[in-house]
Amino acid sequence: MIKKYVFGTPVETEAVVQVIPVTEKTISRFEFQNNQFIYQMTEKTKVYGLGEANRGINKRGYRYVSFCSDEPSHTEEKESLYGAHNFLVIDDENPFGVFIDNPGKVTFDLGYEEINQLVITPKYMDMYIYLIEGNTPLDIIRQFRKMIGKSYIPPKWAFGFGQCRWSYENSGRVDDVIRNYEEHQMLISSVYLDIDYMQDYKDFTINEERFPDFKDYVSKVRKKGIRLVPIIDAGVKIEEGYHVYEEGVKNRFFVKDINGEDYITAVWPGYTHFPDFLNSKARAWFGEKYRFLLDLGIEGFWNDMNEPAIFYSKNMVERLKKRIKESDIEHDDQVLMDDIRWKLTGVANNSEDYQSMYHDMNGERINHDKVHNLYGYHMSRAAAEAFEKLVPDKKILMFSRSSYIGMHRYCGIWMGDNCSWWSHILLNLKMLPSLNMCGFMYIGADVGGFGCNATEDLVMRWMALGVFTPLFRNHSAFGTRNQECYQFTDTAAFKNIIDVRYRLMPYIYDVYLKSVENDDMMYSPLAFVYPEDEIASGIEDQLLLGEDIMIAPVYLQNAIGRYVYLPENMTFVKFERDGKTVCESMRKGVHFVKIARDEVPLFIRENHQVKIVRQSVITDASLREKIMDCSICYREEDFEYLQ
Amino acid sequence: MIKKYVFGTPVETEAVVQVIPVTEKTISRFEFQNNQFIYQMTEKTKVYGLGEANRGINKRGYRYVSFCSDEPSHTEEKESLYGAHNFLVIDDENPFGVFIDNPGKVTFDLGYEEINQLVITPKYMDMYIYLIEGNTPLDIIRQFRKMIGKSYIPPKWAFGFGQCRWSYENSGRVDDVIRNYEEHQMLISSVYLDIDYMQDYKDFTINEERFPDFKDYVSKVRKKGIRLVPIIDAGVKIEEGYHVYEEGVKNRFFVKDINGEDYITAVWPGYTHFPDFLNSKARAWFGEKYRFLLDLGIEGFWNDMNEPAIFYSKNMVERLKKRIKESDIEHDDQVLMDDIRWKLTGVANNSEDYQSMYHDMNGERINHDKVHNLYGYHMSRAAAEAFEKLVPDKKILMFSRSSYIGMHRYCGIWMGDNCSWWSHILLNLKMLPSLNMCGFMYIGADVGGFGCNATEDLVMRWMALGVFTPLFRNHSAFGTRNQECYQFTDTAAFKNIIDVRYRLMPYIYDVYLKSVENDDMMYSPLAFVYPEDEIASGIEDQLLLGEDIMIAPVYLQNAIGRYVYLPENMTFVKFERDGKTVCESMRKGVHFVKIARDEVPLFIRENHQVKIVRQSVITDASLREKIMDCSICYREEDFEYLQ
Repeated sequence: MIKKYVFGTPVETEAVVQVIPVTEKTISRFEFQNNQFIYQMTEKTKVYGLGEANRGINKRGYRYVSFCSDEPSHTEEKESLYGAHNFLVIDDENPFGVFIDNPGKVTFDLGYEEINQLVITPKYMDMYIYLIEGNTPLDIIRQFRKMIGKSYIPPKWAFGFGQCRWSYENSGRVDDVIRNYEEHQMLISSVYLDIDYMQDYKDFTINEERFPDFKDYVSKVRKKGIRLVPIIDAGVKIEEGYHVYEEGVKNRFFVKDINGEDYITAVWPGYTHFPDFLNSKARAWFGEKYRFLLDLGIEGFWNDMNEPAIFYSKNMVERLKKRIKESDIEHDDQVLMDDIRWKLTGVANNSEDYQSMYHDMNGERINHDKVHNLYGYHMSRAAAEAFEKLVPDKKILMFSRSSYIGMHRYCGIWMGDNCSWWSHILLNLKMLPSLNMCGFMYIGADVGGFGCNATEDLVMRWMALGVFTPLFRNHSAFGTRNQECYQFTDTAAFKNIIDVRYRLMPYIYDVYLKSVENDDMMYSPLAFVYPEDEIASGIEDQLLLGEDIMIAPVYLQNAIGRYVYLPENMTFVKFERDGKTVCESMRKGVHFVKIARDEVPLFIRENHQVKIVRQSVITDASLREKIMDCSICYREEDFEYLQ
Repeated sequence: MIKKYVFGTPVETEAVVQVIPVTEKTISRFEFQNNQFIYQMTEKTKVYGLGEANRGINKRGYRYVSFCSDEPSHTEEKESLYGAHNFLVIDDENPFGVFIDNPGKVTFDLGYEEINQLVITPKYMDMYIYLIEGNTPLDIIRQFRKMIGKSYIPPKWAFGFGQCRWSYENSGRVDDVIRNYEEHQMLISSVYLDIDYMQDYKDFTINEERFPDFKDYVSKVRKKGIRLVPIIDAGVKIEEGYHVYEEGVKNRFFVKDINGEDYITAVWPGYTHFPDFLNSKARAWFGEKYRFLLDLGIEGFWNDMNEPAIFYSKNMVERLKKRIKESDIEHDDQVLMDDIRWKLTGVANNSEDYQSMYHDMNGERINHDKVHNLYGYHMSRAAAEAFEKLVPDKKILMFSRSSYIGMHRYCGIWMGDNCSWWSHILLNLKMLPSLNMCGFMYIGADVGGFGCNATEDLVMRWMALGVFTPLFRNHSAFGTRNQECYQFTDTAAFKNIIDVRYRLMPYIYDVYLKSVENDDMMYSPLAFVYPEDEIASGIEDQLLLGEDIMIAPVYLQNAIGRYVYLPENMTFVKFERDGKTVCESMRKGVHFVKIARDEVPLFIRENHQVKIVRQSVITDASLREKIMDCSICYREEDFEYLQ
């Protein structure tokens, strides 16, 4: 049962597709005072949701701020990451869900100030609020998912393994990656292109020196079963003669300042303007631009920097220059070091800039700060709506860094710029069910970690989780250690782990499609499946994947295995080197299981079975391109069953 | 069996007190090439040591750089923290220890570049190296500890609970803390004073407005059983008429630049000079300055900023001003934002400054960079040597932020500026045995976390580890949420946890003294005690404390308990609310044990017993001051036994 409440004059976010009449009554479940929504929790209350957010599956005990942020260092205290997913499930005696459909900043204090008090504080009081009553968290989530519409389904090849780095800056580097994967007989379905494939970081351009005859090159790579997937950034370079810039200015398609002038911010290309994705005409215009790359044979994209990230704005720089000019920095070191220094570093992603930008939303001028969390969503929507027109018969891969609920219908997300930290393996796992709750199904983290330097064991252990996520991409940042799977010593182990992914593909793809079709969880916390089991309910390092599998990766360095809790009897399966599989029946309860670095573990529930592709099929050289391309049609004899 | 090797012309660090003849042979165990010491590990090799360092107890799989650093954000990738403790135990078939007695930068690659290769790379090739052969890690550690001399023993009151914050900036704030602890009947033995008690951050001054009649105030607080423990910073403010500055300049007791001028760096007081603690005369002079505070009744100190931390130097600022002056920042925003901005932020703790400073070491000029890691050690040594003369019959509490092996004879350390992160509870635990290996016994972290905002459950769980560490201090940073135990809802639970500390005091103090006396570990990894037990050998979230107790704190938010591995039968003890104790016999093996937020868990080994103070003694109001003062003499009937 869903109730919809209206406060003030909401922006129509189009997060919700179901038509639900507004309830006239005052909001139930919450106490509403001083523009805050307050709920008293008991000691036993659990709180789920918030999608791409920091910390636990049970999100109790901290404060989260929905405000899409370019925040690459996800340390524990961070309150905002790249997405804004305002859906909570409050699980106690009478569980309910709440969706705050408000694209401005919303603060969720889930027992931070007062350990048993949940307080929701929107910055702006214009919004719809949906309250969903249900018998269980899953029941509530299904109602919510139905309300927000079916999730995006990518092309099948997007379930293959992909390799990325900032940056394979020319075709030689890409060739090198592909050749190395070939030489080590590691399967790979995609290679990602980061910002350097563009001419001067200009969207919808190719640097011809670095990638000569790009169309032919795309086709050449494609013949090996591999797709190239380029990045698209939100900001458009200010450069006379650059058609995207010229058209945007002419048609008034860029975000404005208060005086109606195009707002100037610096990102990768230097000074840029931001397309006004909240303006439906600008959206149609920008979406159509993707045609340039589709025509070159591109079938997948990742949309980046669309929180939007701001390195600095022209406004801020002018103000700082004035401050420097008026200061006696020649004689007063403290002014330079204690004031100007910190002002200079504080200009990135500054709230003053967000408050100084304006959108044209169906003819109405609206301050960016009020709708900040829609920006990445509408950038991706621009592209998705264009794809429907440009390539109606084709599925295009797309995922975005920034997001809001509603965007799940148009594309997937990756979990943003994480780090090569062991703790981020676990954070990767914890985000999976939370994102599913909010409709996001095509999801995955930068396996091996984006920032910082990875070690062989870290990448290997992370890959053994990545094999289970729809988006399975190894990605690393400029200046960090190379972490492609062939860069390390034990390449045979990496080959085997990647093989496991392709062997599991039918199961993963099938669970994906069913989860979308049935508004179901692909990844369930154990608490959802074994609610009466007190230990299971608190487990945050294991997940159910579909109906049959429980995953429990190793996420600690130098570990010879891990504790695992079986809420029922299960079969412990280890994919060992060289395609070997070992199965062991285990009793319900607490175990310490040994899992070597080169092994991929999973558990199969009692009386369930899992269909996997035989290793012999995977290693059949004649099928190689078809497997990488994910175009292979398996015959029954290509499968074996684990149970 | 210890072998001592000499390379180049070593600085005499006085880390080692045992007289050991130099071996003429080339170094064994390691391959020595290109100024690197290389050791091939097997898959099973474990590496212990490095004292106050990041990551695991088994330090394999990462790179560590010994270079004392003011690094408050201990994320996983950080290679240098506040201390430099170059002692490793390499545990495989023929275990051995190695101590690189080199106070310049030393890099330890313990399987980072190549997963099975250990590479030690000193920046400067002047050093002693000690190789220690032994049968077990503990045997090797005992030999090493004997070699470096007996560890510091603080006064008994230093084992009481202490409260700190940056800052209780006046006596009213301190009174408020004490009153609140009194009102909630929580015992407290010390209140720490951070930098604001000083006049303009000048060492050995008191701000008389904030702390009028300081001597009387110290005495008044002391009568309640509580000591005030002030901070001392390394840098001396440049201010005419300030006696420490004037004397330092006159006697040439400050660190110099290459031209022999006093080197100018900015820290809390603005521009300062660093005392040349490597100069024995300067050391005697600075140590004597502590008399000022001893005479006011002070009995404990913490030495801070002694890596030394540098906000910026005069040299750097001059260079930056020149760069700004010569730039066309009026017209070139990119120069300002992409160059000057990052140069300005990069000036803190800059290697160029460390390379530009010079010490006078027994008449010889030596570049700071070569001896960087001795600075904090010798600051604390200055004080400790003075205490021996000034108050020969009294034990003084002292601990330092920066350290080098050798300093363990003079004082303790705290683990530096951590954060209110759940992961830092575990990091706190992991540092305990590593520090013991290097001689540091009086140790502890900022309980509740220094940086970031703490929550009630985090502080409570962390306190339940803190009760087991010699230094047990709750401390938090300026601008963060107040985290004194009375700031939260369930003060009765906090009272109980603190009570547990005082009930355990006789055991903890006894283990401490014995560990010092016998060059033993106070905290042992399970691997040391159960080397044949493969699971136990990999456990990094449990420790043996002394002979009788195993500790296993809860360090995850919202956890209802934790997994625990018992390598033998044990008694599971929970200190519950209101002084209740619950004991349960448990069998060897893997368990999930329930531990509520307000409970302190410990395990007692089979056939062992632990003597604790009865709750009735702790809550005897007439004994309150004596308990806080730790001057109580217990009678046999004051104890009970857990077994």
